[in-house]
Amino acid sequence: MSYFLGIDGGGTGCRAAIADGSGRIIGEGASGPANISTDVKTACANILAAARAALEQAGRGHVDELTAVLGLAGANVTAAALSLQSMLPFRRTRIVTDAVTAATGALGADDGIVAAMGTGSVFAVQIGSEMRQYGGRGFLLGDEGSGAVLGRALLSEALRAEDGFVPMSPLLQAVLDELGGIEGVISFGLRARPAEFAIFAPRIVAGGDPAAERLFDSAVAEIRAMIDTLQAGRDLPVVFLGGLGAHYAHRLQGLWPIRAPKGSGLDGALHLARQEV
Amino acid sequence: MSYFLGIDGGGTGCRAAIADGSGRIIGEGASGPANISTDVKTACANILAAARAALEQAGRGHVDELTAVLGLAGANVTAAALSLQSMLPFRRTRIVTDAVTAATGALGADDGIVAAMGTGSVFAVQIGSEMRQYGGRGFLLGDEGSGAVLGRALLSEALRAEDGFVPMSPLLQAVLDELGGIEGVISFGLRARPAEFAIFAPRIVAGGDPAAERLFDSAVAEIRAMIDTLQAGRDLPVVFLGGLGAHYAHRLQGLWPIRAPKGSGLDGALHLARQEV
Repeated sequence: MSYFLGIDGGGTGCRAAIADGSGRIIGEGASGPANISTDVKTACANILAAARAALEQAGRGHVDELTAVLGLAGANVTAAALSLQSMLPFRRTRIVTDAVTAATGALGADDGIVAAMGTGSVFAVQIGSEMRQYGGRGFLLGDEGSGAVLGRALLSEALRAEDGFVPMSPLLQAVLDELGGIEGVISFGLRARPAEFAIFAPRIVAGGDPAAERLFDSAVAEIRAMIDTLQAGRDLPVVFLGGLGAHYAHRLQGLWPIRAPKGSGLDGALHLARQEV
Repeated sequence: MSYFLGIDGGGTGCRAAIADGSGRIIGEGASGPANISTDVKTACANILAAARAALEQAGRGHVDELTAVLGLAGANVTAAALSLQSMLPFRRTRIVTDAVTAATGALGADDGIVAAMGTGSVFAVQIGSEMRQYGGRGFLLGDEGSGAVLGRALLSEALRAEDGFVPMSPLLQAVLDELGGIEGVISFGLRARPAEFAIFAPRIVAGGDPAAERLFDSAVAEIRAMIDTLQAGRDLPVVFLGGLGAHYAHRLQGLWPIRAPKGSGLDGALHLARQEV
């Protein structure tokens, strides 16, 4: 009997699901953080704990019988992925980024485009059984339209408004007041991680502030152009994921078919695991 | 008899000049680095060494007779400026940023706008005896049109070109090849300081590459809009400083009177020192 393990692991937690040969989920488990670029040993322990909990719920199967696909934050760091691979006891193990399993879960077996718009941003195109990732590339040089990049743009705009280069708005003034004026904004910028810039994103996409609307309009235009490029004249369905996904979907409706995700990243990991045999 | 001391100090060295009551320079000196936010004790020692060398050349005056204005990198860090102030033996001491002395030197007593376009960027407007600084704000949130920001934009564009979002160009391909492809560009971006991003600026402003021209056109339009805002309907002369200054001056000629700088940052420091009494 074949059993399949799907893992979806990130900076906050790790989820596991076991499926039988028919694809039916027979056990699930959860544990703590599993970002392998941060701490591979802790990630490994939490992956095993989640897998064992799922096996226990299933009441059958053993770790060395599992065909496993793990979608993990930090899996783009090749050394960390190789190190984890050597530590895992599964019969067969494939490690991919959590972006790959999220996109696979969102599309299932269908052709389509996934736009994951969270703290960062990344795109994927699936045609047939081929999936390719685009964009991402991080806070400083890429992550177009992401929450962190929108937050940074808001702080820049607040500084420009304080100098009179662009009109002041209620949100820009609020940000200046909250962070302690120009000096406060600059020192926040020097120490903040991307997730801290992204804290401002909900206030940007909420609408109602002229500066926020200008910034979000510009991001929406950029993401539209990127998806048009990925469509390459086709009319593939587009699935938006992430905390800002619904806001982009709302603004871009009517351009292409926009679909809800078929399943989660955990579903995507199980889907890929069943393709392994 | 009154003597005046001007100091122009930055990360690479410190220059000093002594002038008599008529404004004539009677002695000059130089020494090592004087960035007070990096190392205030070394900066203080180098400032005193340069001042003593200038006094020696002048053959008259003593440190405790000097009215001094110091234009120093890092002087925007208030704690460092106050610490240095307490360590200096001059009769009267005023510490300002090197951007202020550079702008004062460039304009002398004239009304005008200074656009300093180097690794970073900063603007100043002088009307009557009032000078105000605008922009700057650093690599992450400001420094519009600067060499470091242009270099970062080039690396972003190279990543987008590699994904097919924008057309590849010879310069973008060269940058990808030199830095080791997508992974190399991303890891360069994560470790590079602003001055390292600025290394790419001369190739961007040189012209001849379609991607570089697009990026520089966009920066020129941004700087034009910022200077138009600072003009506020006036027709003030504009002085461009810094390594990229001549490139912006060339592209923006005919819009406002563009002038060569009247003098250096050291001239600016002496000019301000004579205004102190």
